[in-house]
This record gives sequence, C-alpha cells and structure tokens, in this order.
Amino acid sequence: MTVADDPKPRALVDVAGLREAIAQFARERDWEPFHSPKNLAMALTGEVGELVELFQWLTEDASREVARDAVTARRVRDEMADVLIYLVRLAAVLEVDLDDAVRSKLAANARRYPIEKARGNANKATQP
Amino acid sequence: MTVADDPKPRALVDVAGLREAIAQFARERDWEPFHSPKNLAMALTGEVGELVELFQWLTEDASREVARDAVTARRVRDEMADVLIYLVRLAAVLEVDLDDAVRSKLAANARRYPIEKARGNANKATQP
Amino acid sequence: MTVADDPKPRALVDVAGLREAIAQFARERDWEPFHSPKNLAMALTGEVGELVELFQWLTEDASREVARDAVTARRVRDEMADVLIYLVRLAAVLEVDLDDAVRSKLAANARRYPIEKARGNANKATQP
Amino acid sequence: MTVADDPKPRALVDVAGLREAIAQFARERDWEPFHSPKNLAMALTGEVGELVELFQWLTEDASREVARDAVTARRVRDEMADVLIYLVRLAAVLEVDLDDAVRSKLAANARRYPIEKARGNANKATQP
Repeated sequence: MTVADDPKPRALVDVAGLREAIAQFARERDWEPFHSPKNLAMALTGEVGELVELFQWLTEDASREVARDAVTARRVRDEMADVLIYLVRLAAVLEVDLDDAVRSKLAANARRYPIEKARGNANKATQP
Repeated sequence: MTVADDPKPRALVDVAGLREAIAQFARERDWEPFHSPKNLAMALTGEVGELVELFQWLTEDASREVARDAVTARRVRDEMADVLIYLVRLAAVLEVDLDDAVRSKLAANARRYPIEKARGNANKATQP
Repeated sequence: MTVADDPKPRALVDVAGLREAIAQFARERDWEPFHSPKNLAMALTGEVGELVELFQWLTEDASREVARDAVTARRVRDEMADVLIYLVRLAAVLEVDLDDAVRSKLAANARRYPIEKARGNANKATQP
Repeated sequence: MTVADDPKPRALVDVAGLREAIAQFARERDWEPFHSPKNLAMALTGEVGELVELFQWLTEDASREVARDAVTARRVRDEMADVLIYLVRLAAVLEVDLDDAVRSKLAANARRYPIEKARGNANKATQP
C-alpha cells in the first residue's frame, strides 16, 4: 500500500475485528436484546470492579510486579479483556467510533493539561 | 485473500497508536510515576462511574436513544474515550497484549456459553 | 429520657456498633496497615461491582422482584453488607461522622432540587 | 446494663432515620418510579466512582492525610454521604435489613478468615 492509496493517518484504535467477533457471539446466542447501553454500562462496571479487586490490597510497587505471579497475571489479563469486550460492544451499540473518540479526547486533554503547567503535578486540577 | 498474502490473522484489536500517544503524553508531563497499575485501575473506575451516571435514570429503551441528544452523545463519547485511554495505559504498564487477551477470553467464553445452552438466556449461570 | 437530658435530635445514622465490630475484626487480624483510605475506596468499588453484576441483565421491573429468588436475595444482601462494611470502615479511618455527613448532604440536596422544579424529573440537571 | 434493662442486643446499624428522610425526599419529588433497584445500583456505582477519584493519584500515606485539606475533606465527606444515601435507599426498596445483613456477613467473615490464619495476611485467599 502506498501513500497515494491511503492518505489517511493510521488509526490510533482499530477494534473492528473485535467488534465483529462480539456481534457474532451475541447474535448466535440471541443476546442482542440484553445488550442495551444501560445494561452494557453496568456490565462494564462489574468487570472493572473485578479488576480493581486484584489490586486493592497491594502497594503501588507491588501492583507493578503483579505479573510475576502467573495466576494473578492471568486474572488481570482476563479482566482487562472483559472490560475491553464490553466497552467495544457498548461503542458498537451506540455507534460510537472509538478512534474518533480518543483522538478528540486526547486533543482536549492536551489543551487542558499544558505540558509546562502539568509537569509532575498530580493535583486534581492539573491531571485527568 | 490467501495464506500467501497474509499468513498472520488480522488483529482483533490494534491500539498501538493510542498506546504510543498516551506514553508520549505521560512522558512529556512527568506523569509516569503516577501511573502505577493500582492508580490506573482506580482511574478506570472513576471514568466508568462517570459513564454509568449518564445512563442511571434512563430506561433501557431511552439508553438506546441516548445519542439523539447531542450534548449527552458527546459526554458518552468522551467518557468511553477516557475508559479506553486508561485501559490501554494499564495494559502498556503491565505489558499485557490486549489482542491476545481478548482472543483468549473470547475462546473461553465460547466454551463457557455453548450456543444451544446460552441462547436467549441471561441467567447468571449462562451469561457473562 | 427527657428533652432536658437529650436536646439532640435522633441520629439519622448510627453505625457505632458496626464501626467497633469492624475495628476489632481488623485489629485481631493485624489488617490495620492494609486499611488505608486509598485501599478501602478500592475495596468499596469491588463490592459495588459485585452488587451491580446481580442486576445488570435484569429489566428494571425484574430488579424489583429480585428478592423472590432466595439465592439471589441472599447474594444481594451479602453484597450490600460488604459495601456498608467498607464504607463504615473508611469513615472510621478518615474520622468522618456519617450522621453529620448525610445531614449536610440531604440539606444540600434539598436546596439543589427544590420540590416544584424537580418533581417527576430525572434530568441530570434536576436529579442527583 | 442488665438483661432486664435491655433484652435485645444493640443494633450494629440503625439507619431508620435516614431511610425515612430519603423516602420523604423521593416521595415529595415523585422520584419513586426512578428508584428501581437496578437504577439505584447504578447510582451507587457513580457515587463510588466519584469517591475513588479523590484518592486515585494519592499514595496510601497521602490518602490517610486527605482530611488535612478542607476542600478535599468536604468532598470526601459528601461523596461518602451519597454512597450511604443510595445504599440505604436500595435497602429500603428491596426491604433488606442492613443490621441483619452486616451481622450475618460479619459472622461469615469470621468463619472465612480465622484469626490465626489471616493475621497480617492480605492475600486474596485470606482477606475480603
């Protein structure tokens, strides 16, 4: 492929494959009626809750080493997958383009947290 | 397409562009020390909470129509972007390959929810 | 008891018994070092996530009938207890008086949502 | 105090006052139809998310000192009040007795985490 073929910048996010895989999975099981945005937002919450539980009693340093234990590493990976699956499903149902959404949000963040002002500063006023 | 053209299966998820954009954003602001997995899991929670708030008083049907109001549509899109940004950042910090993670989880879900058994059934025992 | 003995209005919230029970439970197990506000806020998240999962695929009407199934009723009750336990523990660690806190918040809500304006209205602008 | 004075054990949790205050608040605004368990569980999520955001970039030690800043202390207190308000409302709607619920859960926790085994141990297998 050449620049002439594709002048568009590379996507920051491409989840088309996952979106299709989930859509097929839900269709085959007649789960589409359950996948209202309201329900999917709740499901997302539940999965994030399970992810957070893996870190809740760890120090920050220990949380950085969480992958050293194979069982925990697997659980973290699985919960992150669940979060992404429900997020991509929610985006599909709402027809949200996640690549557009993150581009727009990163641009807004760049305006909101100028480098000089935000450097090394985790105050709520200066960090998302 | 033939195997000769593309021996590798297409990725379900490609967030390399976003991962790099966030890494640069954090590096420029010296935010890396704040981005422990523990903290990022908390940040993910906060963003999901903001997303859920947009749906909490809506009926399921109204949640399907949420994009009709431009202001709400924009808020939903922004919150979904925030969730994805923190999830991708967490994956980067933990060196989790999200494409691998969702492939593995989708395969596990297919085993856990066989089509015939799961069809149209939202019982906890038969749906994630 | 007479007004002269106790001019103070009855508490809206009295969780002193639970607060003591949890403190003893944590002390006996040397868990106090784990109970930083940061960790407890995460634990609270995890428990709320488990509670939400019980409702995520239910219609609103079905969620009202959730207690009809004894197993689900028990799970709901247990998750609500976990949420309350971590909330009360967090309040204890931070020395927050929950009775004061809810009085102050209810008063603020009454100012924010005047009856005539808020009646039957679940718009974000008019409902917490 | 003797059995004759008080044959009933003191409640661990008494939120009857708050329950009545919220019921009146909702009734006056015709908000009862919005207060399905499903919606209230979502609202609880949103409030916990706001609480977590106050701690997400803090170290554990800094989270212990969060009350030193008056503005943050107030926000923490308000978010904790919101969590308790929605939890008590959910319990009322579902007719869950929170005092019973925490007694039962504390007893289960005591069996699950025997003192000798759990002491100083925050492994997931030995701590809630």
